[in-house]
Amino acid sequence: MLYSLEAGGKRIRPLLLFATLAAFGADTKKGLQTAAAIEMIHTYSLIHDDLPSMDNDDLRRGKPTNHKVFGDAFAILAGDALLTYSFQIITETPAEWANAEMKLNLIDELSKAAGAEGMVGGQVADISGEEKELTLNELEYIHIHKTGKLLECSVISGAILSGAEKETINILAEFAYHLGLAFQIRDDILDLEGTEDIIGKPVGSDTYNNKSTYPSLLSLEGAKKSLHQHIQQAKSKLKETGLNTSLLEEITDLIETRDH
Amino acid sequence: MLYSLEAGGKRIRPLLLFATLAAFGADTKKGLQTAAAIEMIHTYSLIHDDLPSMDNDDLRRGKPTNHKVFGDAFAILAGDALLTYSFQIITETPAEWANAEMKLNLIDELSKAAGAEGMVGGQVADISGEEKELTLNELEYIHIHKTGKLLECSVISGAILSGAEKETINILAEFAYHLGLAFQIRDDILDLEGTEDIIGKPVGSDTYNNKSTYPSLLSLEGAKKSLHQHIQQAKSKLKETGLNTSLLEEITDLIETRDH
Repeated sequence: MLYSLEAGGKRIRPLLLFATLAAFGADTKKGLQTAAAIEMIHTYSLIHDDLPSMDNDDLRRGKPTNHKVFGDAFAILAGDALLTYSFQIITETPAEWANAEMKLNLIDELSKAAGAEGMVGGQVADISGEEKELTLNELEYIHIHKTGKLLECSVISGAILSGAEKETINILAEFAYHLGLAFQIRDDILDLEGTEDIIGKPVGSDTYNNKSTYPSLLSLEGAKKSLHQHIQQAKSKLKETGLNTSLLEEITDLIETRDH
Repeated sequence: MLYSLEAGGKRIRPLLLFATLAAFGADTKKGLQTAAAIEMIHTYSLIHDDLPSMDNDDLRRGKPTNHKVFGDAFAILAGDALLTYSFQIITETPAEWANAEMKLNLIDELSKAAGAEGMVGGQVADISGEEKELTLNELEYIHIHKTGKLLECSVISGAILSGAEKETINILAEFAYHLGLAFQIRDDILDLEGTEDIIGKPVGSDTYNNKSTYPSLLSLEGAKKSLHQHIQQAKSKLKETGLNTSLLEEITDLIETRDH
């Protein structure tokens, strides 16, 4: 469990949660447990995705994948335990930072974002669509569920912990929706234009693996245009909230220009 | 997810939860969501345990195992989604049956019972101890965690939903501890004395697989004696609660004499 948690990564989900708390002027410490929970769920999903029966990857963030070090059985169990612990750690949020209703709300959002309606559903669609030419709708379904829902959950969780109104939470969820798609389009572009040393995997591996991507469906230029549109829509949603969203805007800009 | 949930089984965990509610004179409907959650966690653990990298079993309850029908990737994901959904469904317990504090308490108990401190920890110890001659202490550690914790959680959950005092919950947890060990000792005895058609697996498979069992460590007679002792201790704990525990006693008797 620790091996994969400590392998690093961008920590984009915790960052989004803390930046959302900051937008409300709330104490970012409130988000520690939930941010850890979401990062543990992200980490478990990587451990299981890397397994031989899934993507069969030997390297993750420049280190041998979990199953390469500990074997498939322990990798499956480490993932199971991380997923389970994520719910426990939310219940352990100190009472002065979240009341019981808030914690239940966080658990409800996280289980939906991570489960069959969310991330796992996206992974199932991804596997089912392998080696097929996907439509743009099918590609977006996969990304919205496989990556988008957990990113959205990070933002929603920050809002819940800040005691936000339902209406504001909905606007922030739309922000996160566009941010999530932008994140994925940038990923596809980096696969074509990135530098192997920086992105940490061979350039062009999507093309090599016959994967449908935004550039393959929209052309590289079309993908860049779509990326920029989603970034603009994300920022316009941030404005709509009327909150002090400078940190969230900064993250949004980074997602458009990131090189890894 | 449905294929494995609907494959049947003894449903001993839901039965224990409902029988505990009955002992308090509480409405058993209160337990529906939590009983489903615990059975989903039990089911996910069987799906993952049956995988080629774990026990590599082709049959479960007379039907092909999940990965034999859907492939390893979807079996892993079905397990992940069942585990995730179990926490969601507890949050969905109607408010008239459980308040927010109770639901959080249920989620906390379930995550501890199912995770690294509980069931997954037991499975890790089980795999680590394969092909080794275990001591009785090591064998009990495995059973207490791999099977016992979730059985105990079923009883504790029924008590939480009944609004029980901490002291009564502790006595019931001790009841469940002895019941869980009795359950496992009976399992080991059935492996030697059972009928293949009834227990659903070849008689003597533990011996064949070189597994340490109660009969191998205590002799068959010693195992039967220990089984009876745990049954007696379980029943004495039930008496101590002062509740109307007739259904729980009936389940306890069934566990001593069950033939599958």
